[in-house]
Amino acid sequence: MQKKIVTISRQYGSGGRYIGKKLSEKLGIPCYDEKLIDMVAKESGFAQDFVAEKGERMTGSLLFNIASSLSYANNVFSGNGVSLQDEIYFIQNKIIKDLAEKGSCVIVGRCADYILREREDVLNVFIHADMASKINRAVTYFGITEDQAPALLKKKDKARSNHYKYYTDQDWGMASNYDLSLNSGALGIDGCVDVILKALEEIK
Amino acid sequence: MQKKIVTISRQYGSGGRYIGKKLSEKLGIPCYDEKLIDMVAKESGFAQDFVAEKGERMTGSLLFNIASSLSYANNVFSGNGVSLQDEIYFIQNKIIKDLAEKGSCVIVGRCADYILREREDVLNVFIHADMASKINRAVTYFGITEDQAPALLKKKDKARSNHYKYYTDQDWGMASNYDLSLNSGALGIDGCVDVILKALEEIK
Repeated sequence: MQKKIVTISRQYGSGGRYIGKKLSEKLGIPCYDEKLIDMVAKESGFAQDFVAEKGERMTGSLLFNIASSLSYANNVFSGNGVSLQDEIYFIQNKIIKDLAEKGSCVIVGRCADYILREREDVLNVFIHADMASKINRAVTYFGITEDQAPALLKKKDKARSNHYKYYTDQDWGMASNYDLSLNSGALGIDGCVDVILKALEEIK
Repeated sequence: MQKKIVTISRQYGSGGRYIGKKLSEKLGIPCYDEKLIDMVAKESGFAQDFVAEKGERMTGSLLFNIASSLSYANNVFSGNGVSLQDEIYFIQNKIIKDLAEKGSCVIVGRCADYILREREDVLNVFIHADMASKINRAVTYFGITEDQAPALLKKKDKARSNHYKYYTDQDWGMASNYDLSLNSGALGIDGCVDVILKALEEIK
């Protein structure tokens, strides 16, 4: 594979974001994570925090979100009758497609695997881990207490799963959506990076 | 990881069985696939074909199978009131645990990932592929016509999925059930073998 585009989807606390960063450093190509949020915020005019939250997570019940995308009830619509969440998705969609067109890169989250599904030069990766490893990362790096962690992890992943389902009609975390899924709890962060590098060598 | 135990679950037509065989050859360790069916047939006294079919696939509707395991209605019970399907599962369960205890090996299918879930020296792998690659393999190696292939592939995987759900209460093909999931359509058979070898090097 000449051009290297890697998308990384990940469970909260699995270290997927960090794996994306390390991978991009090893490959000497850009990693779009916070940078992508900046670009969407700039393009849309929304605040970064709002983009970070709405661009990947479907908070509240799925039914509520579906209902809100069909009506003006909750006042989160832009001037053209599209929900703000949808507007962010459309802008992300365009920016991710442009980035992939431009050159090799790593893109973390944001349904990039689905958005780039028609390209043949993309390796789609999913990072997950056992609950104990995720709690350990969340407590160490995100300042969350051990008591809070299990419920928070579940909530974050539920919101990502709902968001993914809503925009892709696919089940988040199903192995068949990705070329490579890795348990960072078993393989370690550097182990995951090395296995992804190996897969990039092998890809047809 | 000193001892190498690798379980391989796979979609029908993904080449998972062949990947298991090649991997075991590279590692110089036994691969239990047909050999495992022989062992279960010998231990249970059932015919090989019956073990091959019932030991991994839940044919008919899931509800029918659940119902049949609760009653004597369909005359598929052994003398001790356990359904023949359950009896095969229990024997497989014991044989797989004994094999893992004995030494390094590759075990293909048969819920081995779940059966060995309490061991820490196991790498669980899931092999899948895009529909076109699976049809190609099914037509080339299993003597199936291109017209028959899509429905047959779906039926075989549905039966495996139902069987897995029934005995493990987990969803077959969810990335989080495995340490490593690979798309053999993208990575190729030899590519998958090499990525698994890399993961075995990295595992903690």
